[in-house]
Amino acid sequence: MSDERISEKVKNVQSSAIRELLKHSKMEGVISLGGGIPNPDLFDREGLQMAMDKVLSVSWKDAFQYGLSEGSPDLREAICQLLKQRLITCHPDDVVITSGSQQSLDMLARVLINPGDVIVVERPTYLAALQVFHLAEAQLASVGTDGEGMKVDELEELVKTTTIKAVYIVPTFGNPGGVTLSDERRKKLVALSKRYNFVIIEDDPYSEINFTDKLFKPLTAWAKEIDNSENVIYTSTFSKILAPGARVGWVVAPEWIKKQIVTLKQATDLHTSSLSQSLAYHYLQTGRLPDQLKIIRASYKDKCQVLCEEIERELGEHLTFHRPQGGMFLWAKFKYQKNTTDWLKKTLANGVVYVPGEFFYADNPDASTLRMSYVSVADENLRKAVARLKASLE
Amino acid sequence: MSDERISEKVKNVQSSAIRELLKHSKMEGVISLGGGIPNPDLFDREGLQMAMDKVLSVSWKDAFQYGLSEGSPDLREAICQLLKQRLITCHPDDVVITSGSQQSLDMLARVLINPGDVIVVERPTYLAALQVFHLAEAQLASVGTDGEGMKVDELEELVKTTTIKAVYIVPTFGNPGGVTLSDERRKKLVALSKRYNFVIIEDDPYSEINFTDKLFKPLTAWAKEIDNSENVIYTSTFSKILAPGARVGWVVAPEWIKKQIVTLKQATDLHTSSLSQSLAYHYLQTGRLPDQLKIIRASYKDKCQVLCEEIERELGEHLTFHRPQGGMFLWAKFKYQKNTTDWLKKTLANGVVYVPGEFFYADNPDASTLRMSYVSVADENLRKAVARLKASLE
Repeated sequence: MSDERISEKVKNVQSSAIRELLKHSKMEGVISLGGGIPNPDLFDREGLQMAMDKVLSVSWKDAFQYGLSEGSPDLREAICQLLKQRLITCHPDDVVITSGSQQSLDMLARVLINPGDVIVVERPTYLAALQVFHLAEAQLASVGTDGEGMKVDELEELVKTTTIKAVYIVPTFGNPGGVTLSDERRKKLVALSKRYNFVIIEDDPYSEINFTDKLFKPLTAWAKEIDNSENVIYTSTFSKILAPGARVGWVVAPEWIKKQIVTLKQATDLHTSSLSQSLAYHYLQTGRLPDQLKIIRASYKDKCQVLCEEIERELGEHLTFHRPQGGMFLWAKFKYQKNTTDWLKKTLANGVVYVPGEFFYADNPDASTLRMSYVSVADENLRKAVARLKASLE
Repeated sequence: MSDERISEKVKNVQSSAIRELLKHSKMEGVISLGGGIPNPDLFDREGLQMAMDKVLSVSWKDAFQYGLSEGSPDLREAICQLLKQRLITCHPDDVVITSGSQQSLDMLARVLINPGDVIVVERPTYLAALQVFHLAEAQLASVGTDGEGMKVDELEELVKTTTIKAVYIVPTFGNPGGVTLSDERRKKLVALSKRYNFVIIEDDPYSEINFTDKLFKPLTAWAKEIDNSENVIYTSTFSKILAPGARVGWVVAPEWIKKQIVTLKQATDLHTSSLSQSLAYHYLQTGRLPDQLKIIRASYKDKCQVLCEEIERELGEHLTFHRPQGGMFLWAKFKYQKNTTDWLKKTLANGVVYVPGEFFYADNPDASTLRMSYVSVADENLRKAVARLKASLE
């Protein structure tokens, strides 16, 4: 028997390049700027232990039993509280708990997309979002980005002539681009959504990893101001601020789609781990998250600065980049034609890996780009990594 | 905006009737035979606590961090050990950890099914399997069952004239039918699969809930004997034997499909909760599962007996059923025409609910059937429930 029995949709989905890269990153002596995983040294082990004590003493029956497909009412309530600080007003009934952002995206793709529907993504965009949109047989279109995020003017030109179903965007401290959509563009994007009646999927895993004092108001909040809430779906996760292994994310969605998300969630996996949900809830109840976020922000900000400065000093004549205001990723581009996928073989031989940029494009990949993550790498290794990249140019 | 933006596939999937019923079951004074959930009084709280202590002391970095899409190597190894007792020989590389059986089924449907592919199910069959096959746009065909499970002769007639992609079956202590496929039919089913080259999805959540001394050899093991392992995919779960809230299940699959399952798993939710996986692993390491299973078996067997005897005595002239050899469900059928969906309104008024049987059919529903679960109901309430059912016939 061969692969002929595999469904056509799935056959076309490739295992991500990052998965392959992670193999390299675990080779002895190789410094990896490739991963997208939080720094485990910053997990709040003590707080998580305290929360688990509560789970097992107070909530064990719920934590071990089947639960509601939409998620635990306690946790949904706590998420609404959390979102207030992000300037989002919502009700627990608007929230569906998912098994992380990836599942949020897969479910949204399945609920929204009929084959051929046009989904607009950024150039570059989140790789695993491309996977789920392909699985749903969407037709992808892309809009460029610069230091202020998605070029919304370009989007406007597109929607004037093309009916689109949705725009998928990571507006704040994007992955992989590392850039943040300006307020002006945020306003314009939600206005376009209202005018041309398309959905915005606002993917926001990183906004708490903020290196600045500015609060970047979510598209969801902007939409509310112009009475366009019906068109904006917000997703976020505990993966970057608490513990990715728990696999707890969420969607905030208007009623017309929320009911179908819950129905699909039930068919997909009944509900997200009650144990993980209970852990997240009791962790939030400890009140430790704000201090924990300060620790994460300070550490990632420092590491980001080290990497940026090192690249400017050592590779400034070769690479250009926008300095991130938050998040986990630095996106850089060669100032001249260079294929970073080919170059990877050389840098690997010199003991450093990154993710070649071309994988992050729905179309017209720019092969001279690369994504680097700084968050899990010791400062001295960030410096070594840049030195090794430099050596690989010779 | 209205529902017009919901994808056609998802629009057609309804929230399950069981979900609606669960609302009733929580009404004051109503005895529910409707749920499909394990008895929480039988959770091994002490053992789960011991396991969690290990998670937090030994495995916390893994439990809180991203993991492999195919699941934790330790847990996959432990599952292979567990499966030896079910007469299944497999290698950790054959195992993919999922977020429970429901996800296993959804992923298998997505990986296997092109729109229009024929999937054969039992009459009756597991409701939520119907959902995922509908989502994948399968064409469903059904084969009857009797006290020895699926009528494999009927399947043979079907496959002689129709090309089918797969048979989905719960061969041991089925849900909802409560019946178990005989050895003779098991042999014949795997032989048909080999001869007509179709896939068997063997869903086995309940085989450990065995009320007899007989070990029912899985289809997977029979297939191995005739060199047909390539055609059989096995799924199971910790939900019925440990804790459903953890959402940990698994698939044992041949290589040709296993790789695609892993790729899809990555796109779907990256991986199953590392925390839940670590809990399951460390629980297995405590060595308490065999004793725990004895407790569950004894309790469920007693309750099953109470319900069966009570129905025979009080409702014997109205209902006929096959006495389960294991599992969680009793499936009964009126000896005369009666619509159990309509009847439910009356029994609810009298303080007892069940699941009407018609929802468990891919086609040609038998509306005179009903499913009752005995596992979470106190003995005296089982007796009361039957008395209330009887009163509802007047």
